[in-house]
Amino acid sequence: MARNKKQKVRRPRAETPKGFRDYFGADVTERAAMLRDITDIYTRYGFDPLESSAVETVEALGKFLPDVDRPNEGVFAWQDEDESWMALRYDLTAPLARVYAQHRNSLPSPYRRYAVGPVWRNEKPGPGRYRQFYQCDADTVGTPTVAADSEICAMLSDTLEAVGIPRGDYVVRVNNRKVLNGVMEVAGLVDPDDADAFAHERGIVMRAIDKIDRLGEEGVRALIGAGRKDASGDYTDGAGLSDEQADIIMDFMSARRDSGAATCARLGELVGGSTAGQEGVRELETIAELLDAQGYGPDRILIDPSVVRGLGYYTGPVFEAELTFDILDEKGRKRQFGSVAGGGRYDDLVKRFTGQDVPATGVSIGVDRLLAALRETGRIGSSVAGPVIVTVMDRDRMADYQTMVADLRNAGLRAEMYLGNPKDMGRQLKYADQREAPVAVIQGGDEAARGTVQLKDLALGARLAAEIETNEEWKAQPAQVEVPRDALVAEVRAMIARADGGGV
Amino acid sequence: MARNKKQKVRRPRAETPKGFRDYFGADVTERAAMLRDITDIYTRYGFDPLESSAVETVEALGKFLPDVDRPNEGVFAWQDEDESWMALRYDLTAPLARVYAQHRNSLPSPYRRYAVGPVWRNEKPGPGRYRQFYQCDADTVGTPTVAADSEICAMLSDTLEAVGIPRGDYVVRVNNRKVLNGVMEVAGLVDPDDADAFAHERGIVMRAIDKIDRLGEEGVRALIGAGRKDASGDYTDGAGLSDEQADIIMDFMSARRDSGAATCARLGELVGGSTAGQEGVRELETIAELLDAQGYGPDRILIDPSVVRGLGYYTGPVFEAELTFDILDEKGRKRQFGSVAGGGRYDDLVKRFTGQDVPATGVSIGVDRLLAALRETGRIGSSVAGPVIVTVMDRDRMADYQTMVADLRNAGLRAEMYLGNPKDMGRQLKYADQREAPVAVIQGGDEAARGTVQLKDLALGARLAAEIETNEEWKAQPAQVEVPRDALVAEVRAMIARADGGGV
Repeated sequence: MARNKKQKVRRPRAETPKGFRDYFGADVTERAAMLRDITDIYTRYGFDPLESSAVETVEALGKFLPDVDRPNEGVFAWQDEDESWMALRYDLTAPLARVYAQHRNSLPSPYRRYAVGPVWRNEKPGPGRYRQFYQCDADTVGTPTVAADSEICAMLSDTLEAVGIPRGDYVVRVNNRKVLNGVMEVAGLVDPDDADAFAHERGIVMRAIDKIDRLGEEGVRALIGAGRKDASGDYTDGAGLSDEQADIIMDFMSARRDSGAATCARLGELVGGSTAGQEGVRELETIAELLDAQGYGPDRILIDPSVVRGLGYYTGPVFEAELTFDILDEKGRKRQFGSVAGGGRYDDLVKRFTGQDVPATGVSIGVDRLLAALRETGRIGSSVAGPVIVTVMDRDRMADYQTMVADLRNAGLRAEMYLGNPKDMGRQLKYADQREAPVAVIQGGDEAARGTVQLKDLALGARLAAEIETNEEWKAQPAQVEVPRDALVAEVRAMIARADGGGV
Repeated sequence: MARNKKQKVRRPRAETPKGFRDYFGADVTERAAMLRDITDIYTRYGFDPLESSAVETVEALGKFLPDVDRPNEGVFAWQDEDESWMALRYDLTAPLARVYAQHRNSLPSPYRRYAVGPVWRNEKPGPGRYRQFYQCDADTVGTPTVAADSEICAMLSDTLEAVGIPRGDYVVRVNNRKVLNGVMEVAGLVDPDDADAFAHERGIVMRAIDKIDRLGEEGVRALIGAGRKDASGDYTDGAGLSDEQADIIMDFMSARRDSGAATCARLGELVGGSTAGQEGVRELETIAELLDAQGYGPDRILIDPSVVRGLGYYTGPVFEAELTFDILDEKGRKRQFGSVAGGGRYDDLVKRFTGQDVPATGVSIGVDRLLAALRETGRIGSSVAGPVIVTVMDRDRMADYQTMVADLRNAGLRAEMYLGNPKDMGRQLKYADQREAPVAVIQGGDEAARGTVQLKDLALGARLAAEIETNEEWKAQPAQVEVPRDALVAEVRAMIARADGGGV
C-alpha cells in the first residue's frame, strides 16, 4: 500500500498552469464566428491579415527593465540556447511595430492590417482574469491623415452592427489628445520655452480626468485643485490649479453639444489661440465632416470630449466604442454594459527601431467583452447543433449502423455512431442527451427484419419532459416513431427542422 | 557622429527570434479557409472543438528529463514566480491527455474532439523548418472499438476531398501494429515468458522497417540480418536474423493484395498462431468491412502492410494519407507528393495522470504540407481579392472620395481611399498595383464638374501590358472609361466580374 501511495504522489497533476484555461465546444465556435464577422468587415475596408510570430525577442518588445538585464515581469520570457531572451507577445501592437520596421520596404504604404490571436500577460491571475486571452486589432500605419482615423471609426460602427449589436445599442465616441493639449496651454499649464515646466501638474490633471468614471466631476475638480481626501481618509495632493484654471479643464470635459459641428465650435472657443489646440479641433471637424458625408450620424459616432480613456497614451484622435444598453451587475444593479473597443493615433510606433517617425492609428476590440455582450443579450447562440446519434443494439451489425451514419453525413447532417460500450440503451441515450443530440436512431433485430428504424425525437422529448408531470403521460407521447430504413435521412431531417422551428 | 553611431547600436533589431516567422495576407486567409473546410467535416462527424491553453505545466507535458530537474530541451520552458516550470505545448496530443484527465467526469464518453492551433518546438531551425507551426488533430478518446479507427479513416478521406484533392489523387493506407507484433512472434522474436527477451532485435527490426523508404528492401534486409555498410563505408550492426526469420518480416511488408479481404487473408497466414497477430488481423478485417459498407473502396482507403511509419509509436491500427500525384523535387526529378496526414491508436494517453487505461485513436494533418500541396496543384488561390482604390486628386474633396468608398463598401465590395500623400497620381497607381487592385477610381475637378468618375481597369491593364509591345498601342487601349458618378458601383462591379471571368 505504501508503495502504491508513493506511486500516486509521483503522477503529474492534470491542471493548466495558474491563470490559464481551456475552451470547449461552443466557446470556441462562437468566438470564431464572431471574429469571422469582424474580419469580414475589416477585409471589406481594405485591411489585410497579419499573423505574426507568437514569440518575439524581448529586445523587440521593448520589455527590458531600465538598467536591468532581465525582462519586465509583465511578460513570459526565457533564454534561447545562445542566451538571448525571447518572450510571448503581450499585445498585437508591439509585434506590428517590429513587423513594419522589418518589412517596411516590401509592405504597401500606408499599410492597413488586422491581426487576431492570443496574447500572454505575466500578471497575477484573478477571477475572470486570465494570463492568455484574445485580441483583435486593426491599424493603419504610415499616414498622418485623419481620414484614416475617421475610417476606423466608421469600420468600428459597421463591425458592431455586423456581429449583432443593433444601431442605437452602441455609440463610438471620438476625442482628440491635441485638444486637451490646447486646453492645458490655455489653462497656463504649458510654457512654450520649457517643455518640462508644469509637467508635474499636467500629469496630475491627466490622471485625474482619466478617473472621472470613478471619482465624478467633484472628485476630479478636487484633484486638479487643492487635493482630495477619499472615503478612507487618505489624502492625495492636488495639481494646485486655481478655480479659473480648473474651470477650463472641466469645461473641456463637458463641451459636448448636440452636433459634431457645435461641439467642435465650442472646443474652438476653449482652446483659444493654442496652435496645437486649433489643430486638434480642425482634425475633429474633418473627422465629423468625413463621417457625415458617409452617413455616420451622431446616432452612431459622436464627437465627445468626455472620452478620456487613452488620452494619456495616444497622440491625436482617440475613440472608444460603448454598448449603451443596461445589464445587471453582480449586485443586481442596472448599469450600462460599457466599453468594448478603443483606440487612437500613436506616432512613435516604429521610431524605436528605425529612428523614423511613422504615424499610425488603430483600434483594438475586447474580444471576450464583446462576446460576453452578445451572450448576455442572447444575440449569439450555440452555432453548432448536437449530432444525430445512431445507437448500437446489436454489435454484430456495426456495419449497418455505420452505414446509417454515413448516409446521414453524406446528406450534410451531423451524425455519429455510439462508440462506447453498447451494453445498455440507457447509457447510450444518456450519452445522446449529453451531446444535445436532436435525434437518436435505434434499430434492433425486429426493426432490421422489418426494414425499419426507430427515431427518438430527443428535442421534442426534452420539451415534453419539461411539461409533463407523470410518467404515464410521458410514455404516451409521440416522441418516438418507426419509419422505413429508406426514409431515415428524410425523416431525421424533418425532425431536426421541426426542432429548430418549434420553441420551448 | 560617434554619439549618433552609439545611439544606432542601441536600437533594437526588428527581427523575429531565430526559427520564427510572420504570415501575411493570403498566407493567413488560405490556411484559415483550408482549416475551415477541414473542421466542417470534423464537425459533421460529431467531433467538438477544443482549444486548450498554449501554456502547460512541464509536469503535465511529461517533459522533465529523467533524474534531472530541468525540462527537456525540446520545449520552450520557463519558471513561474512560485518556481514551478511551465512550457509552450509541443503538440496537441499531450494537452488532450491533460484536458481529458482533468475534465473526464464532465466530458462525454467517448469524447470526439478536434483541435487546431500553433505548437512550438525548441529545435534547431533549418530551411523550411520553423519552431512554431500549425497542427490540426482529431481524436476519439475512451473507446477500444476499431469502429473509431475506421471512422477516422473515412473522415480523413472526406476531408482530403473537401479541401480539393480529387479522388484518385490520394490514398489512405491502414496497417496494424498488432499484426507486426504477431509477425515478430512467428519470426521467433518474442518469448512469451520474458517480455524483455529479443527486445534489442525487435528494436533494430522496427527501426529498419521504419527506414524502408530510404533504404529500400535490400537495405532493410541487410539491417535485420547481418548488418549494413552504407555508401560512406559506415557499418551498422544488424539484428542478426536468419534468412528464414528475415523472410517472414519481408513477407509482412509485401503482404498487400488486390482487396482488403485478400490482404487480411494473407496476413492471417503470416501471423500463424500468434494471438496478438490474429487479433490485429481481425481488427483490419473489421475496418475493411465497415469501410466497404459505407462505400469507401480501395480507390480511397487501402489495407496496406507496407505502411510502417508510426508502427513503433502506436499500439493498434495506424493510418497514413498520401497524395499520389507527381511533383518535381528541388532537383527537377519527379516524385510522389507523399504523406500529408497520419495517425493511429494509442492506449496510454491518460494513464500517466490517472493510472487508468484510456484507449484512444486519432489523426494529425500536416497543415503546412497539405497547404503546400494545394498551392502546388493550383487548387487554392488567393481567397481575398485586392481592394478597389479610390484615388485622391484634390485633397479638399476627401469627403467626396470617402463617400465613393462608402458606397462601394456598402455594396459589399472591398474598397479603400488612398491614404498616403496624394501628391502625384503615379504613386497612387503604383500603390494600387501593389495592392493588386482590380480597379482604380479617379475624379479630378473636370470630372467632378461633369458629375462623372474615371475608372481604370487595372486587371485588364495588366493583361494588355503583357500583350502590347509599344507605348502607342498601349495608350489606345480601352482600359480606362469615364462613367456617371451614379453608375460608380454598378460599373466597378461589372469590371470586377469581367476580370474574374476573363483569363490572361
